Amino acid sequence: MPFKERMMETHETKTPETVRYLEDLQVGQRFHSATHTITADEIKVFAYEFDPQPFHLCEASARTSIFGSLAASGWHTAALTMRLLVTSGLPIDGGLIGRGGEIAWPRPTRPGDVLRVEAEVARTTPSRSKPDRGTATFEVRTFNQKHEVVQELTMNLMLPRRLTESQKRTIARPIGRLSVSAEVNEASPIVQPARSDVEDGGQSARRAADIAVAL
Amino acid sequence: MPFKERMMETHETKTPETVRYLEDLQVGQRFHSATHTITADEIKVFAYEFDPQPFHLCEASARTSIFGSLAASGWHTAALTMRLLVTSGLPIDGGLIGRGGEIAWPRPTRPGDVLRVEAEVARTTPSRSKPDRGTATFEVRTFNQKHEVVQELTMNLMLPRRLTESQKRTIARPIGRLSVSAEVNEASPIVQPARSDVEDGGQSARRAADIAVAL
Repeated sequence: MPFKERMMETHETKTPETVRYLEDLQVGQRFHSATHTITADEIKVFAYEFDPQPFHLCEASARTSIFGSLAASGWHTAALTMRLLVTSGLPIDGGLIGRGGEIAWPRPTRPGDVLRVEAEVARTTPSRSKPDRGTATFEVRTFNQKHEVVQELTMNLMLPRRLTESQKRTIARPIGRLSVSAEVNEASPIVQPARSDVEDGGQSARRAADIAVAL
Repeated sequence: MPFKERMMETHETKTPETVRYLEDLQVGQRFHSATHTITADEIKVFAYEFDPQPFHLCEASARTSIFGSLAASGWHTAALTMRLLVTSGLPIDGGLIGRGGEIAWPRPTRPGDVLRVEAEVARTTPSRSKPDRGTATFEVRTFNQKHEVVQELTMNLMLPRRLTESQKRTIARPIGRLSVSAEVNEASPIVQPARSDVEDGGQSARRAADIAVAL
């Protein structure tokens, strides 16, 4: 078996260190989730609550539909993708705060599919107006056990930035509560190099907490 | 109270007739859903299964987070939006077959929010390669009870086309099972006028069934 396929087969991953700041991410960096096997019952329970259409609820109806057999709601695939990212795929310290993104379902998710997720850093974009934060854009692909893509998601997450000492002095006070709408279509992306060289003598935890509250 | 606000208050809607074909839709046409009041328990149950992050699971954790108080997962808002579209918002005869779209959450959904959805036809795009189908693009906005937008979704749905007699003769046989991926980024949109003038003497139900199976 070729190396690439064996890698996919075993879901071998480096366990990445926790990401705290936008600058901890590098373009091209990849994250791999664990797997989740979806059952027909799960598909029906989700559909019953959120997408009650015959082809998501009933094998017989699905057979005479465009799907040919039972298919999960695309929103179910999306929700499971989020679960895999949150529980194993993307170790972002302050949480995965989504602004939105672009989603496509090239093929349906089926009962018995073993789903796994790969997330690749596409770009990091510091906020133009708020120096303490930025947007990380990930290309997130959800695969089935045949290595076919069942979902493609370009996902924008909000992350705090690692402030320099001079930035910390110039920012009078971190900004108030959530206000994200204006930032989605921001600036052309500027890639920030990782700044693992910035050391702050153990203040980072406290600062991170400040920023988490203030973002 | 101004007329527009009163309209929103009462959720007064024309009940649109069922949409069967791409040609039944007209650009600018709007659909309005019923409402759903989301509870804190619903938010936590969804989060526990699909987005287990502290600010979606626990009021105390949410207070010290960027959200300031309990907030629903964006994917929960997306799933509820689909439910409102399927059960009341978009009466599409053959079902809502999503290809994907673009999603943004300008503000969080909160416990007690009364959600409702408006869907507006942005464009209809006949398939270039498959004359029996096309894509309808909807601008879907999910509002809370303060008429604030909690989700913006540009959603692409696949619909069958109403074939003319000459088209029916030239299409040897409708195409096999689902193959949607190549079509997402199709053709510049061509708007098709509604063709309510096309009458077919009661054959439409049978033809629709044929197409539903063949799509």
